[in-house]
Amino acid sequence: MSDSVISDAAFRVEHDSMGEVRVPAAALWRAQTQRAVENFPISGTPIEPALIHAIGRVKSAAARVNGELGILDPAQTDAIVGAAESVVAGEHDDQFPIDVFQTGSGTSSNMNANEVVATLAQRSGTDVHPNDHVNASQSSNDTFPTAIHVAAALAVVDDLLPALDVLAGSLERKADEFAGLVKSGRTHLMDATPVLLGQEFGGYAATVRYAAERLESVLPRVRELPLGGTAVGTGINTPPGFAERVIAVLGEASGQPFTEARNHFEAQGTRDSLVELSGVLRTYAVGLTKICNDLRWMASGPTTGLAEIHLPDLQPGSSIMPGKVNPVLPEATLMVCFQVVGNDAAVAAAGASGSFELNVAMPVIARNVLESVRLLAASSRLLAERCVDGITANADRMRQYAESSPSVVTPLNRYLGYEAAAMIAKRALADGATIRETVIAMGYVERGELTEAQLDAALDVESMTHP
Amino acid sequence: MSDSVISDAAFRVEHDSMGEVRVPAAALWRAQTQRAVENFPISGTPIEPALIHAIGRVKSAAARVNGELGILDPAQTDAIVGAAESVVAGEHDDQFPIDVFQTGSGTSSNMNANEVVATLAQRSGTDVHPNDHVNASQSSNDTFPTAIHVAAALAVVDDLLPALDVLAGSLERKADEFAGLVKSGRTHLMDATPVLLGQEFGGYAATVRYAAERLESVLPRVRELPLGGTAVGTGINTPPGFAERVIAVLGEASGQPFTEARNHFEAQGTRDSLVELSGVLRTYAVGLTKICNDLRWMASGPTTGLAEIHLPDLQPGSSIMPGKVNPVLPEATLMVCFQVVGNDAAVAAAGASGSFELNVAMPVIARNVLESVRLLAASSRLLAERCVDGITANADRMRQYAESSPSVVTPLNRYLGYEAAAMIAKRALADGATIRETVIAMGYVERGELTEAQLDAALDVESMTHP
Amino acid sequence: MSDSVISDAAFRVEHDSMGEVRVPAAALWRAQTQRAVENFPISGTPIEPALIHAIGRVKSAAARVNGELGILDPAQTDAIVGAAESVVAGEHDDQFPIDVFQTGSGTSSNMNANEVVATLAQRSGTDVHPNDHVNASQSSNDTFPTAIHVAAALAVVDDLLPALDVLAGSLERKADEFAGLVKSGRTHLMDATPVLLGQEFGGYAATVRYAAERLESVLPRVRELPLGGTAVGTGINTPPGFAERVIAVLGEASGQPFTEARNHFEAQGTRDSLVELSGVLRTYAVGLTKICNDLRWMASGPTTGLAEIHLPDLQPGSSIMPGKVNPVLPEATLMVCFQVVGNDAAVAAAGASGSFELNVAMPVIARNVLESVRLLAASSRLLAERCVDGITANADRMRQYAESSPSVVTPLNRYLGYEAAAMIAKRALADGATIRETVIAMGYVERGELTEAQLDAALDVESMTHP
Amino acid sequence: MSDSVISDAAFRVEHDSMGEVRVPAAALWRAQTQRAVENFPISGTPIEPALIHAIGRVKSAAARVNGELGILDPAQTDAIVGAAESVVAGEHDDQFPIDVFQTGSGTSSNMNANEVVATLAQRSGTDVHPNDHVNASQSSNDTFPTAIHVAAALAVVDDLLPALDVLAGSLERKADEFAGLVKSGRTHLMDATPVLLGQEFGGYAATVRYAAERLESVLPRVRELPLGGTAVGTGINTPPGFAERVIAVLGEASGQPFTEARNHFEAQGTRDSLVELSGVLRTYAVGLTKICNDLRWMASGPTTGLAEIHLPDLQPGSSIMPGKVNPVLPEATLMVCFQVVGNDAAVAAAGASGSFELNVAMPVIARNVLESVRLLAASSRLLAERCVDGITANADRMRQYAESSPSVVTPLNRYLGYEAAAMIAKRALADGATIRETVIAMGYVERGELTEAQLDAALDVESMTHP
Repeated sequence: MSDSVISDAAFRVEHDSMGEVRVPAAALWRAQTQRAVENFPISGTPIEPALIHAIGRVKSAAARVNGELGILDPAQTDAIVGAAESVVAGEHDDQFPIDVFQTGSGTSSNMNANEVVATLAQRSGTDVHPNDHVNASQSSNDTFPTAIHVAAALAVVDDLLPALDVLAGSLERKADEFAGLVKSGRTHLMDATPVLLGQEFGGYAATVRYAAERLESVLPRVRELPLGGTAVGTGINTPPGFAERVIAVLGEASGQPFTEARNHFEAQGTRDSLVELSGVLRTYAVGLTKICNDLRWMASGPTTGLAEIHLPDLQPGSSIMPGKVNPVLPEATLMVCFQVVGNDAAVAAAGASGSFELNVAMPVIARNVLESVRLLAASSRLLAERCVDGITANADRMRQYAESSPSVVTPLNRYLGYEAAAMIAKRALADGATIRETVIAMGYVERGELTEAQLDAALDVESMTHP
Repeated sequence: MSDSVISDAAFRVEHDSMGEVRVPAAALWRAQTQRAVENFPISGTPIEPALIHAIGRVKSAAARVNGELGILDPAQTDAIVGAAESVVAGEHDDQFPIDVFQTGSGTSSNMNANEVVATLAQRSGTDVHPNDHVNASQSSNDTFPTAIHVAAALAVVDDLLPALDVLAGSLERKADEFAGLVKSGRTHLMDATPVLLGQEFGGYAATVRYAAERLESVLPRVRELPLGGTAVGTGINTPPGFAERVIAVLGEASGQPFTEARNHFEAQGTRDSLVELSGVLRTYAVGLTKICNDLRWMASGPTTGLAEIHLPDLQPGSSIMPGKVNPVLPEATLMVCFQVVGNDAAVAAAGASGSFELNVAMPVIARNVLESVRLLAASSRLLAERCVDGITANADRMRQYAESSPSVVTPLNRYLGYEAAAMIAKRALADGATIRETVIAMGYVERGELTEAQLDAALDVESMTHP
Repeated sequence: MSDSVISDAAFRVEHDSMGEVRVPAAALWRAQTQRAVENFPISGTPIEPALIHAIGRVKSAAARVNGELGILDPAQTDAIVGAAESVVAGEHDDQFPIDVFQTGSGTSSNMNANEVVATLAQRSGTDVHPNDHVNASQSSNDTFPTAIHVAAALAVVDDLLPALDVLAGSLERKADEFAGLVKSGRTHLMDATPVLLGQEFGGYAATVRYAAERLESVLPRVRELPLGGTAVGTGINTPPGFAERVIAVLGEASGQPFTEARNHFEAQGTRDSLVELSGVLRTYAVGLTKICNDLRWMASGPTTGLAEIHLPDLQPGSSIMPGKVNPVLPEATLMVCFQVVGNDAAVAAAGASGSFELNVAMPVIARNVLESVRLLAASSRLLAERCVDGITANADRMRQYAESSPSVVTPLNRYLGYEAAAMIAKRALADGATIRETVIAMGYVERGELTEAQLDAALDVESMTHP
Repeated sequence: MSDSVISDAAFRVEHDSMGEVRVPAAALWRAQTQRAVENFPISGTPIEPALIHAIGRVKSAAARVNGELGILDPAQTDAIVGAAESVVAGEHDDQFPIDVFQTGSGTSSNMNANEVVATLAQRSGTDVHPNDHVNASQSSNDTFPTAIHVAAALAVVDDLLPALDVLAGSLERKADEFAGLVKSGRTHLMDATPVLLGQEFGGYAATVRYAAERLESVLPRVRELPLGGTAVGTGINTPPGFAERVIAVLGEASGQPFTEARNHFEAQGTRDSLVELSGVLRTYAVGLTKICNDLRWMASGPTTGLAEIHLPDLQPGSSIMPGKVNPVLPEATLMVCFQVVGNDAAVAAAGASGSFELNVAMPVIARNVLESVRLLAASSRLLAERCVDGITANADRMRQYAESSPSVVTPLNRYLGYEAAAMIAKRALADGATIRETVIAMGYVERGELTEAQLDAALDVESMTHP
């Protein structure tokens, strides 16, 4: 936003309670937005569009209720609602130029919305002031966190939960498809008793379903909105019933069961419910990390790795090694997971920084929570559609692994005890023989400690996967 | 555990599937424990007592069910149950010498329990083998995480939730006691409109009550137990119904509604529910940080700080500045909060490290989750009993602050608009005059923009706290 | 990058080793870039411009050396160098559309550069192939991390260190300006013995100077470049001396003393030096947090806080409380600090994820390190220029605080001992009397334990600040 | 520390500036220690022994210098020095019962040392007061952080650096031993061009050597001691030259080149150098994570994993799967790494919490930094001695892998170009043929694009590892 290349004609002069400011002539925003644009040239990144739209939602609902209460006249009400809804629709994202790293209350972004909406509303010929009308009955201190919660709840419900459903569904279909494929289990990365590839994919699906369950269990607290507390939680300058009614309107408009904060001092002094949400997003990232690593290892090779499954080839993998194809979507997803771990740490640090009546690290909390939701949703969906859906299995190799694992000795514990079984496993490995051969060679059948039929039944790898 | 100073006579020779080991003569443990003691001289810290007791619970319940199923004979059953219950009772904590930093499955600690219980059980004259009897129908891979979940659930329910109740109750009593004390609100650390001290303490109490609610919402998943998966989640070598029945017994014995894991592959491949729990503990630490900082700042002074409240004097505060008394319990609690933030990061890193059928960073997850629970419980209780309960308020100073804050101009918005009010606030501050004086001096009453009665009503600080 | 709204005519068909791809007609990039654009619609954010420019630097230097070695002919060399330098100059940032969250080796971004440079180079009529010529003697696996290190080193040296110098200089000027202003020290937030405001600002300046020193001590390792390792660290397909010579050219072009990695397997298998750098950025964020909090608290008020200093007024602080001005730049800077703490956690998680010959979380490491550098540089400079430079002090209030603090009793330890001094401090506080009055009232002077002159000298607050 | 089971006779009555306290009769400590024991029953864990010993070092050196300056008489000096040295020698660790989670300045632990040393010193018949003599010329606020820095520097130099040398040496010996063993490289976990196993171990050794280099580069700042600042950084109540001389004595006694803090306000207001140190410890944990994961994967199997190397068998690996042996030391080390990541997060949070003249989260910083050093030292040494030293390689399997990898096509780029080479690699993989067979079958030799001799030379796997 450099002034130097723009002639004076390209600006108009606005003023606020601190004096005059030059604003780009075409901008819908006014003095306070312009001050903030100039005060915070830090990251170059404005607040998340989802948050802009959510502020629009709050402004629209607030205007409707201010109209009902006679605080705004019908013309003002209609003008503000119409303007705010166009913000909700994403028509003015470019009119929110203020940096994420701004005043910690988000006052600048709230005023940005007040100014843009006022400018748009005035086009209808009504008198609309940013503070006195668009912001009527509100304070940045309750409106801005309300918008963050609205944005977070909608992003989780409309974006992330469906994406989790897509990924879980994809994994479940593969669990069915691979339900008959036996392979060696691995614990400590070492050969263990057999499992089915379908069981593993079923476990991954469960991981994703649990993530959704965790999100659902946090949502009631995310849906509690600080609105009504205004400046310091007491609700000064807001009429009785205002917040309750606005929250109802927000709920109707979004289909989300928003509620009013049970304690307005907690609701403005802390952002704990967003910290909690972030922790749940991080928990999903942790689970997803394990899924992606398993997929990468199972697909490793083609000749010097495990080569149990094949991931769809998406792009050449190397600028120097011809023909190499890499597990790029699991890798991209892993990087998302690392980012979410980092974003979560930022949220926790910001969440702990509140003092007295307000947490003033809200924009950075919003950025990190909303980005985490967005990244996890996009990567979960991609992982499902461009990777998991196309996975094929190498059934022969997996069966060969399962049968060769010394851990198939495990069912013999019940016949021979743990220590004898351990000796058999070691000898089989040393001799390069199978467990079956070794049991017979060591005379267990001959001595009648178990019959050959029992031995065969015990060593059947399929039966070991569903005892 | 240095051999050098102990004569051979002080040892007995034990053996396991890898050969002979010298074990201290008086030890209840055997070869595998001893190997682990020698393999892992890392931190010098054994696993948490709460985890030892929980392993005892699992061993006791498993033996009972193995007895019911005829896998153990009645004498073995009784002997194992009796021995295991003495572990539960904390009578043998010193027989669990293995370091936290050991094999990642906790196999060493599971075998430690198997060996100690076997030794104790054999004293009754029955034949009890650590693997074949005490560990019957189990694997470290399902037993150890089951014990962690049992320990975590009990620690949350028996220790942390009651401590939160104590702290919330203490804060609520202070909220009542301080319900009539008006003070200046502070946002961005700057003077804001008035609040009641009781409202602030009510907000703190709500923070703690929410923490309890969050814990309650995670508990169902923590109470899901991996038992029944055995080695790799398939349940190999465990009889049908075993896990279900053991879990019922565990539930009866502890009063906790434990359930069987809905998916045994998720339940052993991940520790996501402990990562989630850790995130919730961290969320409480974040909220508690804010409470402690507010208390410290309100108590700052006595002459150069805010001096709004007084914390009980617990100990001399300085080795050099005589008479200085510091907010030591909020400080100790803050350090707990920082530790919990760190423990949570360790849990997340460990939780993300699983591969295929097992997470092998379980002991470090257990250490950090259980320590966080323990630290938060102890410090919350202490903070309540030795600090919050004894807080007294400086009502005069707070009222003086409230009345002097320029933000009391806020209610005039509705009469004069935001911009005129801003001008009044600035002039009052510049002149060192009150808002009331300035409004009159600037002619607003004279010009009839509001009456003197309206002015007085608007500037009443009490009424600003409950509009 | 939706195809649906663009007619076929807007595309051209490109191919790579996997087949055909439709590429926007106007794009400088080709098939592999296009595949990556379509494969990774995750964050919507491309890699940092500083990284694009650094890849350009590497391509330019590599072409120059490939020309020297006869691998490229002079026309190819000139064409590639010219094209790459235009990338360095930032002329083609918009031709790097690939998401940060892509293949973990950055191969897609390396190929993006190869393709863009090849397209530009071919305009001169020479035959230039992305892999065979632009990427000649290189692999993504050494080129991409080399570019990250180059970008990081340049960003630290050209952006962050100068910004730290600006901030430290600003703080030092204030330390001089405030060198004579005595105020109460505060430890544990409680009144302590006097300090000078200038001493505090000197401490802040030292914090910033140390941050610069820490960066300097990490730079030698950041300046070690992986180039020359190619695919797996062995340097396959690269001619002897290539890397050494390219690194020399990079050094000449940038003025940075880059060196070749001492061990190419460490250099590609880990990104430890970036993790280390991130830790140092985080350390600065930690120090800066304390500075911003101190500034905020000293400026708190105007009437109900400490009010020791005044920060420049930048913008109206509240949408509801007229006349309120908040410490917005310290707040924005604090949010930067929280973000850097989070970015650092992301870097650590990503850094730990390497396997065998390559770390494949490089783009996310680059994003977080480079963003942290950028945010800290911008906010440090802003904090200096728009906040610290304009700070004014409230000398009277500070002196009044200093003299009223009961800790001024401390110098009496040497005359009366710690315990007697403690009693005096408590009695003074209880009586609302000064320490001087209390000492006399308690008879210490009368009894000759110290003279009145000694008492006055001991209680002189200025002299307590430089003993 | 329960009173209930101890008769009154077991106590003596002590007093401090706040009144009387009952202290266990046998304790060397006095009133203030006892108050702190009772005030902080939080973790049950006292401060690290290394910190206790370091406080002893400071007390000893301070007494010596107080004696030189005439502040203590010779008898007092000798008595205090003797007593303090017995603390240094670890003879009184059990006399430091105060919890880590205590007052954030460590005043309680400093007073604990003052009291224990005073009690011991008085046994020689001299009059020694904890504050007036043992603590003479000091404050907790400079003494306690000084002790942390001394403890940290000594722990790094005496414990961690030697352990890193052991591990790096062990890895270097293996690098030599394995210098002739060719294997397949792996990037993205996928087959890549060949490397030598020795090159990989050389990379691991470099990782460890870099960690040592990083520690060395931080040590100068860790060795800067806050001593001399006393209460608030001004040095009140300490004679000129005291700190400089004490630091010299500390340096002589420890062999460490300690220096005086360059700025005493930074030195007490922040603990940035410990945050920096923690970041470097974390960087090593990140590098070590990668080493341990590589070792685990190379050792995976024995039949269904990579099985390239064999780790020494240390203990039975499973309570249910007989004969299973797991990579327990890499796992234990990984858990250490996760803990260090967590400890580092705690240190950063604590480090950011300082206000004005003092950071008051010092005990928790000390705990986490010193524990990280201790854990990394112990596990690095163990990993070397019980794991790396005993690693054996499976040369045949590795060579077979190397030769089978499709990436050996890479050297053909120079003859045939990247795209033709990619086609060859894909066809070889599809046909299950070698690259050599495929090149010939596709007619490249016949057509004279390269000779058979060139082909053989290009495909020689050894030569690919050192081009």
